[in-house]
Order: sequence, then C-alpha cells, then structure tokens
Amino acid sequence: MKTIILAPDSFKESASAIEICQAMEKGIRKVFPTANIIKLPMADGGEGTVQALVNSRHGSIHQAVVHNPIGHSVTATYGILEQPKTAVIEMASASGLHLLTQDERDPRITSSYGTGELIAHCLDQGIDQIILGLGGSATNDGGSGMAQALGIRFLDKDGMPLPPGGAALRYLHTIDLSNCHPKLSQVKLTVACDVNNPLCGPQGASAIFGPQKGATPAMVEELDQALAHYASVIDQQLNKSIREIPGSGAAGGLGAGLLAFTPAVLESGIDIVIRETKLADVAKKADVIFTGEGQMDHQTQYGKTPFGVVKVAKKVNPNITAIALAGSLGKDYQALYNEGFDAMFSIAPGPSDLENLMKHTLTNIEATSEAICRLLS
Amino acid sequence: MKTIILAPDSFKESASAIEICQAMEKGIRKVFPTANIIKLPMADGGEGTVQALVNSRHGSIHQAVVHNPIGHSVTATYGILEQPKTAVIEMASASGLHLLTQDERDPRITSSYGTGELIAHCLDQGIDQIILGLGGSATNDGGSGMAQALGIRFLDKDGMPLPPGGAALRYLHTIDLSNCHPKLSQVKLTVACDVNNPLCGPQGASAIFGPQKGATPAMVEELDQALAHYASVIDQQLNKSIREIPGSGAAGGLGAGLLAFTPAVLESGIDIVIRETKLADVAKKADVIFTGEGQMDHQTQYGKTPFGVVKVAKKVNPNITAIALAGSLGKDYQALYNEGFDAMFSIAPGPSDLENLMKHTLTNIEATSEAICRLLS
Repeated sequence: MKTIILAPDSFKESASAIEICQAMEKGIRKVFPTANIIKLPMADGGEGTVQALVNSRHGSIHQAVVHNPIGHSVTATYGILEQPKTAVIEMASASGLHLLTQDERDPRITSSYGTGELIAHCLDQGIDQIILGLGGSATNDGGSGMAQALGIRFLDKDGMPLPPGGAALRYLHTIDLSNCHPKLSQVKLTVACDVNNPLCGPQGASAIFGPQKGATPAMVEELDQALAHYASVIDQQLNKSIREIPGSGAAGGLGAGLLAFTPAVLESGIDIVIRETKLADVAKKADVIFTGEGQMDHQTQYGKTPFGVVKVAKKVNPNITAIALAGSLGKDYQALYNEGFDAMFSIAPGPSDLENLMKHTLTNIEATSEAICRLLS
Repeated sequence: MKTIILAPDSFKESASAIEICQAMEKGIRKVFPTANIIKLPMADGGEGTVQALVNSRHGSIHQAVVHNPIGHSVTATYGILEQPKTAVIEMASASGLHLLTQDERDPRITSSYGTGELIAHCLDQGIDQIILGLGGSATNDGGSGMAQALGIRFLDKDGMPLPPGGAALRYLHTIDLSNCHPKLSQVKLTVACDVNNPLCGPQGASAIFGPQKGATPAMVEELDQALAHYASVIDQQLNKSIREIPGSGAAGGLGAGLLAFTPAVLESGIDIVIRETKLADVAKKADVIFTGEGQMDHQTQYGKTPFGVVKVAKKVNPNITAIALAGSLGKDYQALYNEGFDAMFSIAPGPSDLENLMKHTLTNIEATSEAICRLLS
C-alpha cells in the first residue's frame, strides 16, 4: 500500500490548498483506492496560511472582533493548533488592504492596531506560541498600532498619545513601555516574512509598498521621514537599531515594530509552514509526494512552496517520488528537475484562456493526478 | 533496457507524425538515453499516410507528373515500400481540392484522372500491391476519370468519349473495357476509406461532399442524377451493383469506381496503416508505447488513430504501457481508460490559445514525454 503526501500550495484566485488536496485525492483514489493519503495543504505565510495549517494540523478556526485599519470593527479569524498550542494569525485578517474601500485607503492614518489586538487576545488566553503571517497590509505605521494594542504608548513632546497611523510618528517623542502586556516578553512569536526590504529609504516600506496602499509620492516622502524618525527614537530609547534589518520594512514596517517591541523572529513563510506541518517526519515514510502551485517556473518568483516542499521531502527521503502540478509551467521550468522534482505536469487539458482554466482547476487537478497515478501503478 | 514504440498520428496543421516521433524521442532520451526506440509514425489513410508509411517502413518517396482535377500538369508524390514491394498513393496528391483555386472548383467537370494515372504508373513498373488513400478530393466523377486513365472508355449514345467530370455521366451509354490496363485485374489494391456514404441519394457523394467542393444545390441535384445513371449503366453492363455499398460515395464516388472497375478492397485507413507498419509484431516485444493526436476525446470523432494503435498493442501485449499525448483532451476523455489506454496527457503547458499552442507543439511534446518517462524510470 502506497503512502502518498499531498502538499500543494493554493492555486491563487482559483482554489485553496485544501481544495487542491481534495481534488488530488479524488484522482488518486481512482487508481489507488486504499492508498494512505496524507493531506498537508501548504502556504507561504501569506493568504491561506491559517487555513492550511489548521487543516494540516487538524486545528480549529476562531474569531475575534478587533479594529480594522481605520478603526472600524472587523471580525478577524485566526487558527489554533494543538501540541504544542499555537495561534496562527494572518495580519491581513485584521489589518488588510482588502478590508478598506478605495476611498478609505490612506496609509498616513491606517493602523496595525487590530493585529496587536489579535496578539493580545491570544496572550490573554495563555497562548505562548504565535505564528504571524505578514502580507496584504493596508498600513504604513511601522507596527506602532500593533504595539499600542499591546500596551505600548507613543507620546508627543507634550506627553500626549499620538493619533493612529504612520504620519503622526514624526511627532514621536517618548516611547512608554511601562504598560506593556505582561506576557509579551515571553511569547514565542514566529513571523512569516518573505521580503527583505528595510524600514526606510528607497527600498523601504513607504517607497516600495506605500503606493499600492494609496500613497502619493508626497505621502511616500512624508511617511518615509516619519518612519525614519520613529526608528531613531527606538534606537535612542530602546537601544535597538532595527531600520536596516532585512524585513523590517515588511507590512508597512510591522516587521520593524515586531523586532523593536516583541521577541519576534522573522523567517521565511514556507519554512515555517513546512516545519509546523511536520512534513519532514511524514515524508520519511512516504512513497510519493504531490505538490504544486498555480504557476511554476525556474525563477524563484513562482513555485517557492513546491520548491521548499520537495527540497525537504527529498532531503529526508531521497527515494520519494516528487511530483508537481501547475496551472502553468513557465519558461525553462525543467531546470527544477535539478532541484529534486521527479516530474512536473501542467493541468491544462488543451487550448484555453486563463479565466476558463481557473474555472476548471479542480477537475483538471483530479484528471492529471489520475493519469499520473496510472503511470505509477 | 526499455523498448519504446512511438506511434502517434500527426497533430493536424501543426506537426507531422514523424516530427511528433522525433520530439517524443528527444524527451525520452533525456531520461532513457540508451532505450530501444522504434518510431512508427501513424496515419489514418488521409493526408500524411504516404509519409508515415515510408518512414515506418523505411521506404522511398517518388514523383510522377499527372493531370490535376482540371487537366493541368501536377507533380504528384507517392511512396514505395519494400518487402513486399507496395506503392502508397494519396489520391489528393493528384486529384486533391487543395490543388485548385477557389475559382477552379467546379465538381461538375473535375476529374480523378490523375489518380488513375498514378495507379497506371505503378502497374507499369510491375508493382502489384497498391495502397490508395482517399480523402481530400476535388472530384465528384464517380471515379470515372480514374478509370479512363486505366484505359476504360465511357461513351455516349453516338459512341463518342464523354468529356471529363461527373456531370457528363448523365450521357453515359456504353462502358468499353476492351482497352483496360492489362495488369489492373491482378493488382492487390487496398483502399483506405473511412466514410460509409453510398454513391447516391441524400447521404451520397454529391449531397454530402459536393458542397465543400464548390457545388451549388442545383449542381448537387445534377451530379446526383448523373451518378445514379452511371451506377445504372455499371449495373446493366458490368453486372455490378455498387451504388449502395458503404464507401462507394467516398472521394466523389471514387469508391464506386474502384469497386466497379478494379479488384479494390475498401478498409479502414488506420487498420491498413497499423498492418503495414507491422505494429503488432513490434508491440509484442515492447515495454511502452506512446501514441497521440492533436485532439482526443471519448467520441470516435477524434483520436481514432491512437484508439486503433492501443487496441492492437494491448491485444498482442497486455503488459505494454500505453500512453497517449494530445494537444487537447476533450470532454470525458477518461472513458478511453476502459479501452486500453494507461495514461493520457495534454501537452499544453498552461493557458494559451490554439494558435500559440500549435506553434510550440514539438517543444511541448518533448517536455511532456520527458516528464512521463521520469515517472516510468
């Protein structure tokens, strides 16, 4: 009896990783009805990470009402995994750009406060391990909102609390840690972060990610200067130099705020997900592993999750057969054959535009998985 | 060392069967550099049959100058296979619709004379086995032109030869066999014919195939009546009733002419090609067979060649792994898994329109063949 691992990423805007797993299983079961199929839906730390980890680890989904980037109520979801008890949060659930209308998008005033509320909510429950996925944020506040929600106070020269948002940080005079959440210093906070941008400057949070959040060139300049001042005050008062650390510019500088005020460790999202799903343990005893993503090519731009999955699986089990399915196999994708992939297939059944293919992703995944298993049988 | 047969059909308007074989081989060699690869390019009796059989049997291509459907000179090609010496003719090479401009297409006067000349040319060389592929004809003459080129005379009531073309057959009074080519009665003439249409009537040559050759409704009526008269005269004078025989309406009634005036046997094109390529013998000792076609689905409309190939290969060798590649896998193609196919894959690498896919058929064939072999290794 074969043991087969299913560890695909989502097919973006078409099917979630768990849906891809289910479609793969349907195809495989036609050929191997009694196979031991282990579904480990993957994610890269961005959208879908909570769902993937909850599915892989048989965890649970929870909700909390927090403040969205402009202070309105939003019901955010997060996951709880057991053994060890770990919360999984996607910052976008509380502070995402998708929560705002076009008109509401003003990165001078948007705040990561809701993300901090989610962290506090977990700490209040006694959870001391948190995985936090960045990405998709509406904010450019250096993580100051997140920190405020955890009791840290940002005061102007008159000792008055700053209003929300990155622009106000230009008036930052004093950081008051005295009221900080008592459990924050003990939390094991693992942050999924796949960008290397620093907090400030031409490659910084404001310049690179500000425009997509609604920043005009003048706002970018204003925000970049405000974050630079924020970093200086942190440096002076907390003796932490975070502005040049790769990833400090992630999620509108939330990376910097996490590094400054919490025990966070930044790590590649796919590495975290692979570790948390215990892929390596499972792969040791498996015969075949299926992975995949909407698009794969020889560049790091696409297919990072399948790449990471196969690397780990082959490392612990060189005899495992590693197969990738993609909606689209890009130029020179065969270069991945040198990276541990045994075979790669597109699921496209013939000429078709993207829109039509995306409608039939699950059927095509099922059919291609069946055909592959027929060759393996 | 694996023995692998490559027996694809052409991918219509994109790549010939031999080109598909070569692309498959390139992909396979990347995985199995020393495999015993046997290339048997397939065809269905239509376009590409000469090239496929010449390639599979290591035959030769020859040329002859004959008359095209309106009496102009055309250099037609045909193939010669050895052991036993066999000529392979595609009637379209001498009498094809593609040889005429739009303005020249008038099925009342077009003649299959050139096809008869090719047959005579082979008989003159002492060749006594001929395979003749129908399909693609410009003619609606009941094969009378073909017969004329072989010495048979069609006379009106005044004993004068009829002018070329189907319309003139309404004046047929006497068929004169006295000058018939002396070797015609001994030839083994195998005709590749995949239509079942009778010579006359609503499903006959004129009604069904006339319009695509330029016939107006009035011409269809005129031609149908002329062919009906032609069949009556054949019946009376030769004591052969051919008008209802399935296939007599093929190629503008060339089927009927062949049945009336030659020892022709009509047979399915793919059956002939499979027999002539000795696929069954080769398949007995092979491990894997690759086949394929531009489009395949569960209907008989598409994929007839792969279907025939796999049926024969599995019959003589149930353990052979039968794999089909297609440019497009149509609805419910998985039904073919019940017909002996082990696995079927589309070669499309992702979203793409037909035109773009057809430009990259050979690269995609190569890549998909490689991926499949990586699973078989």
